[in-house]
Amino acid sequence: MIEALLFDVFGTVVDWRTSVIRQLDHFGREHGFSADWAGLADEWRAAYEPAMKAVRDGQRAWTSLERLHRESLDKLLPQHKLSTLSDTQRQQLVLSWHFLDPWPDSVAGLTRLKPKYIIGTLSNGGVRLLTDMAKYAGLPWDVILSSDNFRHYKPDPSVYLGAAEMLETAPTNITLVAAHNYDLAAARSHGFKTAFVPRPTEYGPRQTRDFKGEAEWDFIAKDFEDLATQVGT
Amino acid sequence: MIEALLFDVFGTVVDWRTSVIRQLDHFGREHGFSADWAGLADEWRAAYEPAMKAVRDGQRAWTSLERLHRESLDKLLPQHKLSTLSDTQRQQLVLSWHFLDPWPDSVAGLTRLKPKYIIGTLSNGGVRLLTDMAKYAGLPWDVILSSDNFRHYKPDPSVYLGAAEMLETAPTNITLVAAHNYDLAAARSHGFKTAFVPRPTEYGPRQTRDFKGEAEWDFIAKDFEDLATQVGT
Repeated sequence: MIEALLFDVFGTVVDWRTSVIRQLDHFGREHGFSADWAGLADEWRAAYEPAMKAVRDGQRAWTSLERLHRESLDKLLPQHKLSTLSDTQRQQLVLSWHFLDPWPDSVAGLTRLKPKYIIGTLSNGGVRLLTDMAKYAGLPWDVILSSDNFRHYKPDPSVYLGAAEMLETAPTNITLVAAHNYDLAAARSHGFKTAFVPRPTEYGPRQTRDFKGEAEWDFIAKDFEDLATQVGT
Repeated sequence: MIEALLFDVFGTVVDWRTSVIRQLDHFGREHGFSADWAGLADEWRAAYEPAMKAVRDGQRAWTSLERLHRESLDKLLPQHKLSTLSDTQRQQLVLSWHFLDPWPDSVAGLTRLKPKYIIGTLSNGGVRLLTDMAKYAGLPWDVILSSDNFRHYKPDPSVYLGAAEMLETAPTNITLVAAHNYDLAAARSHGFKTAFVPRPTEYGPRQTRDFKGEAEWDFIAKDFEDLATQVGT
């Protein structure tokens, strides 16, 4: 029995790369800066894992993704000759992660799932980021669950177990939906059901992994519409 | 500037009393029990404050509202000659608090507010309860914030301050909407803006307070539609 489907967000529900590049490019044209915006977006995203890892490993106290995004940006700007960006301009760029476009099937699939199941996020993005994104992209979440709620980042066990506690149900009644095999492996190890949806262009031309489900996940769907069909909606 | 409106839920958004009495009465007819269901509902709600107070005062570790509702019910059943209810039946009655009808203006008012503002709960109900209620009653929340997230009950400061932290904004950019003056007083003391909406029949014929706004709240509205008008939507 499935009571709830919880979704990884960056890459699974939204196309962060195209969206961030577009916003960086727009910012550049608006403010008279030029740079390799795609390169900056990719490096910015690449800084995400090591930044979270320091928090996950306990080398660093809980630090919000918003703060980590800002720190990574500050480190990257000099090598892109963008050191002159003001504090306000940097904050504006950090906000670009709040306004990401959904993949073409995301809203339609979620809309089909919602009448029958609780649908929510289970993301390393913050509550505010996820709320802004839902309003911008029209994502019809019932509930937003975030690393913010648990002050740990996925794949820390407390995020998955905390989500089940918040939903007052057993992990086996929750299906995690993700485009990332590592996330599903962690969820399964804590008793969740799992659904893989490939997003082969998430990382653009340099994508190296997650082209397919690498384990016998409970569901392997080609997109959210296919997932909605597989779970009977 | 208002970025978000957060709503107290029991009494402010939903008519818990009529809804719980109706469900108790339905349960009685279905299972062959008769009792003073209105009396039981009122006593059950009256047990809510002292139960939370023990948690708030630190006499008791964090205990979910779901658990408190069950404990209160277990204590009340003998005096209503309902001691024979099974565990499953008691759980069914506890669940009645998840399925409460909105006041007639709630959904229309929230729907008008949503395009311009973040709208969310700030309730002593749990995340699951609030999620179930939103789906049942059609409440179009952007975000569900609950005592569960902070492991404290209103009016503990950590609930209000935690909500502002989650929304990554200053308390002054958030308006708490409530039918209860004490809740608004606590919110204001932590820097929130405040909006009072009277719900003079929340407690039925025995209501003794909160017939009107008892301070100079930022907004005093006659219902959610009036509130939507006052904040420019």
